[in-house]
Amino acid sequence: MSGTRNDFATGLTGELAAFVAGSRLEDVPDTVREHGVRAILNGFGTALGGASDQALARLGAALVPFSSGQVASVIGRSHRVDAPTAAFLNAAAINVFDFDDTHEGTIIHPTAPVAPVVLAIAEMRPVSGIEALHAFILGVEVACRLGNAVSPWHYDRGWHITSTCGIFGAAAAAARLLKLDQTQTVWALGNASAQSSGLVETLGFMAKSAGVGAAARNGLLSALMAQAGVEGPQDPIGGPRGFLKVTCDAPKFDRVCDGLGDHWELLRNMFKPYPCGVVLNPVIDACLAARNRPGFDARAIDTIVVRGNPLLKARADRPDVTTGREAQVSAQHAVAVALHRGTAGAADFSDEAMADQKVLELRNKVFAVEVDGRKPIEAAEVEIRFSNGERLCERVDIASGSSGHPLSDAALEEKFLGLAAYGSPQLDIGPLLSRLWKLPALPDVAQLLTHARLPG
Amino acid sequence: MSGTRNDFATGLTGELAAFVAGSRLEDVPDTVREHGVRAILNGFGTALGGASDQALARLGAALVPFSSGQVASVIGRSHRVDAPTAAFLNAAAINVFDFDDTHEGTIIHPTAPVAPVVLAIAEMRPVSGIEALHAFILGVEVACRLGNAVSPWHYDRGWHITSTCGIFGAAAAAARLLKLDQTQTVWALGNASAQSSGLVETLGFMAKSAGVGAAARNGLLSALMAQAGVEGPQDPIGGPRGFLKVTCDAPKFDRVCDGLGDHWELLRNMFKPYPCGVVLNPVIDACLAARNRPGFDARAIDTIVVRGNPLLKARADRPDVTTGREAQVSAQHAVAVALHRGTAGAADFSDEAMADQKVLELRNKVFAVEVDGRKPIEAAEVEIRFSNGERLCERVDIASGSSGHPLSDAALEEKFLGLAAYGSPQLDIGPLLSRLWKLPALPDVAQLLTHARLPG
Repeated sequence: MSGTRNDFATGLTGELAAFVAGSRLEDVPDTVREHGVRAILNGFGTALGGASDQALARLGAALVPFSSGQVASVIGRSHRVDAPTAAFLNAAAINVFDFDDTHEGTIIHPTAPVAPVVLAIAEMRPVSGIEALHAFILGVEVACRLGNAVSPWHYDRGWHITSTCGIFGAAAAAARLLKLDQTQTVWALGNASAQSSGLVETLGFMAKSAGVGAAARNGLLSALMAQAGVEGPQDPIGGPRGFLKVTCDAPKFDRVCDGLGDHWELLRNMFKPYPCGVVLNPVIDACLAARNRPGFDARAIDTIVVRGNPLLKARADRPDVTTGREAQVSAQHAVAVALHRGTAGAADFSDEAMADQKVLELRNKVFAVEVDGRKPIEAAEVEIRFSNGERLCERVDIASGSSGHPLSDAALEEKFLGLAAYGSPQLDIGPLLSRLWKLPALPDVAQLLTHARLPG
Repeated sequence: MSGTRNDFATGLTGELAAFVAGSRLEDVPDTVREHGVRAILNGFGTALGGASDQALARLGAALVPFSSGQVASVIGRSHRVDAPTAAFLNAAAINVFDFDDTHEGTIIHPTAPVAPVVLAIAEMRPVSGIEALHAFILGVEVACRLGNAVSPWHYDRGWHITSTCGIFGAAAAAARLLKLDQTQTVWALGNASAQSSGLVETLGFMAKSAGVGAAARNGLLSALMAQAGVEGPQDPIGGPRGFLKVTCDAPKFDRVCDGLGDHWELLRNMFKPYPCGVVLNPVIDACLAARNRPGFDARAIDTIVVRGNPLLKARADRPDVTTGREAQVSAQHAVAVALHRGTAGAADFSDEAMADQKVLELRNKVFAVEVDGRKPIEAAEVEIRFSNGERLCERVDIASGSSGHPLSDAALEEKFLGLAAYGSPQLDIGPLLSRLWKLPALPDVAQLLTHARLPG
């Protein structure tokens, strides 16, 4: 049933597993560690923002009755649950607004499936900050490298790549923290391959979170099963009926392991400034810039034209949205709320924000979303025509949050605080924030999590 | 985020959900009910046989620590666990030897993902035998109809169809027992679509059971999530990025709902006589017939030639297998054990059976597996040449267990008893068996399950 242990040393999965099991901390460059800290901090922020969303309440109502103990923290909530349930709920919370990080090449949101597994294990056994960070970095590396190998076919076909690849990252991070050897890590990835799932069809619905949460929980369980001796095939990733060939017509096998340890995919991870589809980033940048112009008066607007990459129109030309979730991919709502309020945070894309009459009035003035095929996805133009005949045109070439214009640490912290205030206003946020920046120096991650829970 | 309830009435998923939510018992023909009883009885048998397998012990070691209460039975074991964990472990046990039922058109093993969910819910709330049977029949119908729509491309690509389609059957059966309405049932199927998984690459390894178990557990959770209000897309099955289009190049959409309620897929469900790949059924039939000939003496055999469909050679020409799991797809082992022992049950394809020197000697005399392209998969020929020059040729045209030669109820009962004796010898089997035959008349399925547990 298992073959000999030597069988597992060969093949793509074996090579990846050797990397995960054997990676030395000193081989992880400082820039990668620093960016890992940012990703985890950003993930805590989006989890704090998502913690009180209706989707989380409903998922919790279904899952918590089957949680076996008060071991692991649910970020931004007071109750504790067992490790698999915490992994599920925290992954869902991080990703529920799609406001988490985005890996440039694949649009994987890597922190959501990976970080919650690291945190959950840190409440089962002692894990230092640097160990947690290291395991997180390795998990992200695995998820994004698999994503590289199957992109763009995989997502275009309809696979929700955050979940489908994320479970492998979750399993790898867990395997690392559980100190599994190479063979056991191959088994963990094999158990993950049997549970890899996620459909693009569910995006915009709570069902999406069922997939993202399951990726984290089942990734954790995959590693725990491997630890218990649940054996898998030799090459569940690269084999003839393995993950790559089944979920992609022409996978790029070499993308999985080429430059492993030299080139770090985590450095291609970006942080969103707004809780919207990335196509809206330059549009919102332009609107916020317009509103900051001296003398700008939203009431005097007659019509607004938005111009951008064809994807902007394809994904976000949605004038008639009614829910906060839909508003996140509506250029009309994004423009209206940014011009009217001068903000574009979680509270501006909530169901409550949809009832704001001033925003609704302005929304109806967004005349058209026009396509300019020469513009890349990071660029857009917003043209505002006022009742008095004047025009204002704001052009953005590189949107904030894109790799050419990454969020500064100050902006990241501002985003974090805004999300915490929106979704977890009762939390004393200072102690958590300061410890997150110092993650690599923390002796015990479980201690950090006491500051992410509400009292009581 | 959710659209109006009317949105969910249209589309393939809506039609299927209306059938599941609205099916009346009186519309389910007696033949279907009777075959449902057989499937559940056969499932209990294979679960009793698999209960003590090493894979189950290891899966249990990983999962039981996260079980939240002693509510639901693990068939053939003494301990109880929470409902999702019981669904996982019972599904894995039913399917671990691949000795469970097989749907003719798709090779889905439908009972494994569906029945354990029905049983688990019956230990959470009162469920009568006929309610359980009805929900099971509907769940099998959903799984197999999805399978029809994506076959044969889906399995050929590498999807383990028992798991990928099984989760929808599990969710449908659970939705029915939880009395979800049509819209909630669409949500349940949407939550299932986000968690549908399973790779052929894992077959022959314990990791396969991670997929089958997850299908049952996550199907149950999908329905519980829907009950808690976790909303999904309008048509997760037939939508543009829905299950059918993502997991099949040219899905047959009409196969999902055509003849719903008139034609029952459960009637195409077959029960295996032997714990082996189906290609070996006619081979074993022939060997057992040969051994029953007067004067047959295995010691006098010189060589043996096996002839069958090309698939027989492709899948089962394996002279050098070393484990019980591998032996299940080895023509050489199957022939040797059947001719030597005159039996072909679970104990004959165990790791222990591999150490039987007499069987090993005989195995080396299986000279060749030859291809006869005119033979269908249900047919095979075994030619035995004795040292004295005599020849014996046994030909089987329709193997037992195939639709043209289904297992009799007596043979099914014999299989059940053999499996129980193999995997759960401490269980007093009579009370369980008699109640299983009377399932439609039982007032409480939880009561039935007390007879499936070991004392203590």
